[in-house]
Amino acid sequence: MSSKPRIVIALGGNALQTKNSPPTAEAQLEVVKKTCEYIAQIGSSGYEMAIVHGNGPQVGRIVLAGEAAKDVVPPMPFDVCGAMSQGYIGYHLQQSLRYALSKHNRNIPVVTIATHMVVDRNDPAFSSPSKPIGPFYTEAEVEKISEEKGYTMKEDAGRGWRRVVPSPMPRRIVEIDAVKRLWDNTIVISCGGGGIPVVENHDGTLEGVAAVIDKDFAAELLAEQVCADILLILTEVEKVALHFNTPEQKELSHMSLSEASKYVNEGHFAAGSMLPKVLAAMKFVRSNPYKKAIITSLDKAIEALNGGTGTVITFA
Amino acid sequence: MSSKPRIVIALGGNALQTKNSPPTAEAQLEVVKKTCEYIAQIGSSGYEMAIVHGNGPQVGRIVLAGEAAKDVVPPMPFDVCGAMSQGYIGYHLQQSLRYALSKHNRNIPVVTIATHMVVDRNDPAFSSPSKPIGPFYTEAEVEKISEEKGYTMKEDAGRGWRRVVPSPMPRRIVEIDAVKRLWDNTIVISCGGGGIPVVENHDGTLEGVAAVIDKDFAAELLAEQVCADILLILTEVEKVALHFNTPEQKELSHMSLSEASKYVNEGHFAAGSMLPKVLAAMKFVRSNPYKKAIITSLDKAIEALNGGTGTVITFA
Repeated sequence: MSSKPRIVIALGGNALQTKNSPPTAEAQLEVVKKTCEYIAQIGSSGYEMAIVHGNGPQVGRIVLAGEAAKDVVPPMPFDVCGAMSQGYIGYHLQQSLRYALSKHNRNIPVVTIATHMVVDRNDPAFSSPSKPIGPFYTEAEVEKISEEKGYTMKEDAGRGWRRVVPSPMPRRIVEIDAVKRLWDNTIVISCGGGGIPVVENHDGTLEGVAAVIDKDFAAELLAEQVCADILLILTEVEKVALHFNTPEQKELSHMSLSEASKYVNEGHFAAGSMLPKVLAAMKFVRSNPYKKAIITSLDKAIEALNGGTGTVITFA
Repeated sequence: MSSKPRIVIALGGNALQTKNSPPTAEAQLEVVKKTCEYIAQIGSSGYEMAIVHGNGPQVGRIVLAGEAAKDVVPPMPFDVCGAMSQGYIGYHLQQSLRYALSKHNRNIPVVTIATHMVVDRNDPAFSSPSKPIGPFYTEAEVEKISEEKGYTMKEDAGRGWRRVVPSPMPRRIVEIDAVKRLWDNTIVISCGGGGIPVVENHDGTLEGVAAVIDKDFAAELLAEQVCADILLILTEVEKVALHFNTPEQKELSHMSLSEASKYVNEGHFAAGSMLPKVLAAMKFVRSNPYKKAIITSLDKAIEALNGGTGTVITFA
């Protein structure tokens, strides 16, 4: 192992698409190219790294397209849609990052590995599915759909009914050996969208399940497994804030584990948004008190690594 | 490097779907599980191997679904559809092969790497696109489509008009380093569908293009690059035949390079079917006269490796 600090980077949705860009592959590629300029700064500043990305909007569109085309082509199950999104996003990231690094005279291989993530069939998430996916249905259609396909359906904020799937915790990265073996001279993109969710059967087979795995927790697990020094969670804001989006908003430069825990309990962080990021950061520093997690924005990543901004989460 | 013989296996369409199976992901998984039983026999018989697979029907359905859903979600460009098919097929192969190997007490990691394949912008194929993809159009629609999208359109055997794309030769596997580094203890699935076709621009960027790369030639290039001992091309027939499907059909157990060349010139092998397999086999043994290529069926693979069947192609 080399002595360069090891980073696992979790890329949020804004690394792949902006609020104003059209939902096309062409627009994604343009956003990804800019994203990779920032990541290449990290790669050319003496860090070794691996990359995990989200896939929410992308897999959502694959599901929607599949449903819309269902009279022409049978729709893919949700786990396969996740695998397809890994190919799609990984392809854009690996070609763009390779090029961005070459501009820094760093000709480092970049590869995407299709990644299975084992989840626990007994995870409490399976008894209360919460993540909406796919198209909206009218109340009249709901009964038929849930009977025919066995979907759990929920009303989504007055906009109609949608299928909901569980969001279990990631337990084991099936392809972890390959990520470790490639680490020294290759940047690996893995666990895309949190990984393709599978359960492990008693006979040892893996079986795809309809679930959404949080990519920040997946990145955290990867960071533990490769003994990363830093878990770097990149999102839209430069720092984590208390009283976010209120007149009392207060940005944080540092949180200890106990402070973070207190803020979580006080309800400062939104579920499905900042909360999983803070919880993943806490889990990482709890797993090894000598490591740190940083939450910041993509464009401030290098400044944050240099101690100039971002929210640093440490054990004490 | 270990002393075990190294094989690159090219899997044909029948490894992923049978003539009678429905065009669903669920049906594919069942076929892939059986395919992997055969591949696991090879892996447990003292060979090291890597796998390349086709993607014709799969990427075709992704394109069709995208077109059918175009009013709901913008269709993906063809290169992205290829990347998605690599995720989809690789996911099924890697989980099934891992399990099939475990039943032979061979717990070998299996990973899929999203693979870019560089093609030459000046390849003659670009001036005569020949591979039909996507939906059929009426003669009335053709002009509008080709004007709007810049597609080359051809009439397809009386069934309507379709977009045609070029089929250039594969030149360089961008992610070859990772395949080599993982080789010793991992089975790598790469170059799926022949690889995602990209051209290399003068500034070093890779740019996805609409093209179809022959997976047998992609497997051949991989076999050269990893110094494989055997290129094993698995298809529907046990042996290559002269006068195929006629009363004079004659199956071949062996072809030298010069014999193969003669048969090719005599027109024995169908374009898009046996011809690219024989040409890829010839290219492999020409690249190194001490190596061999074998063309046989999936279920006869192990017997063919033991010298019991198949068509062996050698330099002399």
